[in-house]
Amino acid sequence: MSKKVPYRLYLTEDQMPKQWYNLRADMKEQPDPLLNPGTGKPLAEQDLYPIFCEELAHQEMDAETRYVDIPEEIREMYRIYRPSPLIRAYQLEKALDTPAKIYYKFEGNNTSGSHKLNSAIAQAYYAKAQGLAGLTTETGAGQWGTALAEACSYFNLPLTVFMVKGSYEQKPFRKAIIETFGAEVIPSPSNTTEAGRKILAENPGTTGSLGCAISEAVEKAVTSPNYRYVLGSVLNQVLLHQSVIGLEAKIAMDMLEEYPDIIIGCAGGGSNLGGLIAPYMQDKLLGKANPEIYAVEPASCPSLTRGRYAYDFCDTGKVTPLARMYTLGCGFIPSANHAGGLRYHGMSPILSKLYHDGYMKACSVEQTKVFEAAVFFAKNETILPAPESSHAIWKAIEEAKKCKETGEQKTILFGLTGTGYFDMTAYTSYLAQTMSDYIPTDEDLERAFAQLPKIPGIQ
Amino acid sequence: MSKKVPYRLYLTEDQMPKQWYNLRADMKEQPDPLLNPGTGKPLAEQDLYPIFCEELAHQEMDAETRYVDIPEEIREMYRIYRPSPLIRAYQLEKALDTPAKIYYKFEGNNTSGSHKLNSAIAQAYYAKAQGLAGLTTETGAGQWGTALAEACSYFNLPLTVFMVKGSYEQKPFRKAIIETFGAEVIPSPSNTTEAGRKILAENPGTTGSLGCAISEAVEKAVTSPNYRYVLGSVLNQVLLHQSVIGLEAKIAMDMLEEYPDIIIGCAGGGSNLGGLIAPYMQDKLLGKANPEIYAVEPASCPSLTRGRYAYDFCDTGKVTPLARMYTLGCGFIPSANHAGGLRYHGMSPILSKLYHDGYMKACSVEQTKVFEAAVFFAKNETILPAPESSHAIWKAIEEAKKCKETGEQKTILFGLTGTGYFDMTAYTSYLAQTMSDYIPTDEDLERAFAQLPKIPGIQ
Repeated sequence: MSKKVPYRLYLTEDQMPKQWYNLRADMKEQPDPLLNPGTGKPLAEQDLYPIFCEELAHQEMDAETRYVDIPEEIREMYRIYRPSPLIRAYQLEKALDTPAKIYYKFEGNNTSGSHKLNSAIAQAYYAKAQGLAGLTTETGAGQWGTALAEACSYFNLPLTVFMVKGSYEQKPFRKAIIETFGAEVIPSPSNTTEAGRKILAENPGTTGSLGCAISEAVEKAVTSPNYRYVLGSVLNQVLLHQSVIGLEAKIAMDMLEEYPDIIIGCAGGGSNLGGLIAPYMQDKLLGKANPEIYAVEPASCPSLTRGRYAYDFCDTGKVTPLARMYTLGCGFIPSANHAGGLRYHGMSPILSKLYHDGYMKACSVEQTKVFEAAVFFAKNETILPAPESSHAIWKAIEEAKKCKETGEQKTILFGLTGTGYFDMTAYTSYLAQTMSDYIPTDEDLERAFAQLPKIPGIQ
Repeated sequence: MSKKVPYRLYLTEDQMPKQWYNLRADMKEQPDPLLNPGTGKPLAEQDLYPIFCEELAHQEMDAETRYVDIPEEIREMYRIYRPSPLIRAYQLEKALDTPAKIYYKFEGNNTSGSHKLNSAIAQAYYAKAQGLAGLTTETGAGQWGTALAEACSYFNLPLTVFMVKGSYEQKPFRKAIIETFGAEVIPSPSNTTEAGRKILAENPGTTGSLGCAISEAVEKAVTSPNYRYVLGSVLNQVLLHQSVIGLEAKIAMDMLEEYPDIIIGCAGGGSNLGGLIAPYMQDKLLGKANPEIYAVEPASCPSLTRGRYAYDFCDTGKVTPLARMYTLGCGFIPSANHAGGLRYHGMSPILSKLYHDGYMKACSVEQTKVFEAAVFFAKNETILPAPESSHAIWKAIEEAKKCKETGEQKTILFGLTGTGYFDMTAYTSYLAQTMSDYIPTDEDLERAFAQLPKIPGIQ
């Protein structure tokens, strides 16, 4: 028997996690190590110091420490907007007439509009603690840039954000909000870096990609005195910080005596998905439980479902270390009509490994279906979801419909990563029926795969 | 001794109010009655039935019932996004280095982005319960239009929104979000109504006003079969519904063993202010306590601080009943450079009466100061506030600074009515230092006052 479930369950401050959980500590097989692209040799923690601040480099490499204390300064800022609510989707259930019980962990109730703030705070804090002069980063849809601008403003740290040009032009107000928090915004590719100039010379009309923006941000960081680069997804450190989502969700679900049969997250670089599933994946790794776990990605950028599990650059300009991950090739750029986020060419190495080893499943969906689910959700749950989050909504609705057919009362948990206030251009295009879908052809992908790096003795 | 105060205090569902509180039941002197503009005679409840649905007409006139049960259907939808948090502004206090304790009740965590949803749900529910075919309304900055679109979508009721043209052009995404919830949006003044055509003929370049939009919405309602008109502020019924804000705030403050010395709300038509202060004003009316209560309004639209306490039309087209209130004259239109909301020419008759009788104070502030406070608040509290709400923030900061000078540890409570996601044009203009202030001259106001209606034997 489950307890009476409120619409929204908020933990108290005392119940909030005091430690992050490091999934790698419980993985029997580890993700493959980062490689130096010049030598093909694994990197040591110190090799990352020119790019990342030291504590973050340590977290990136540390596969041993199971629970990492969250510094009090970070918990202090978490308390301003956390805990995020665990919401029972009663109205959605009613509209679908499903026996399924649908829960979502809603991370959108902060000004960045998404879960990205959880890692932004941590990264800005460690940078400040090391006495850095400033940070650089990239942003796609703009959630990460906003989050990091908030965090840097809070810790009084200068920030330069390279924003994917397509998003920059589609979302002028994102730029405004990032600037409100005092950061500088540069559309990418730009003429301000060598990597940007090179990409522009090769492809003058490009709308950019996360990969391009990363190249520029990394270059800017390593060429500016006492600056470092930070990234909002993909990295092991980011999944560590984002575990706060799943840890809170699990405490709340436990209070309700609920255990999800299915856990669903949207997946771009994997930061939300990795965070949401963390404690449930632990149960799976330890053989304690076996929930189904789904990554949902855009059909226009299908790294897990159609990518290669291979070593690749994390950026388009090929300046970063090599990571083994599911990838579409670092030169892959989603078609210009792609409206949502989740546009990264690769996937978190941790999640890639777990997927490769059969611990989770993946599926992809076209954007018109995503927006159909988004509007349906908004009308019933009165939250306007981000297009990213709506990938998970779509899958949750599919699963709830299946339950209606079979009569099963499954418990579904999904991550509602953020709000769609800055995505109204895309919503308008969907409502006006001018939105179209583009699924890359096999030839498109083969062209991108052909650019994968050759590493003697490895691939 | 006060208890340890968390950053955010959320009531549980069980603690949420089951009744609204009707301030009029405790007012020794009542606001003056609505008058028929043709006869100058007071209106009866039935006279309002052509405009408002019957239950809302009843609530508008009912000065007797102290506590009104909130129907279960409304409480059901409240539970989707309420309770709203009571937040202790620790970071703001720290940044101001003030001994004051600052609390705010944050109503922005719903897709409408503001407190307006509290009354929208009630009004849509009663309209649906009466079997109406649809609703019309006006919206200024767009928060009310969004809120009502959400509520109408939830209760499956058609809706037409007349949006002040200036806002419509400044905030294209507001239109998109209202349409996402299935409502129709028409910029006002428009050619779709007689009132709109008349206003356009007289002043073709006008950016519109709430008063114009109300005229059009009322006309559209009374000329469409089985439609009624709804309004997001000013009315007694709206203050009734919004009392949920103050009731929740008081329960939470009581739990913390705190009682505010100063309560601050921004004031346009008075919906948030009237709701926030309701239970504290009750204490004041009953002689139980005597907190200072402040209405903060834009210097560009100063109805309380520079208006006349007089009978006036609620709209520009002069089709509504006459209400006695602080007013700038129904023809008053704020200067085109006015960026925030709070642009209504009048003020809630209940609040007008309380102000007139000395139960509350008012002050006004220029918009550049408002945005300065908004950016300062955002950087410290990580919430991007609506310009409307930022009027209250400005005053709270002023009071906290005074406490620093005097060393007093006052407890300040203010209403953070909403978020500023749709106000980035204004933020950008502030950051680029192209925002200017305009304070109406005495001559401007005299011209507007000259248009106040003449009512034989009354004014």
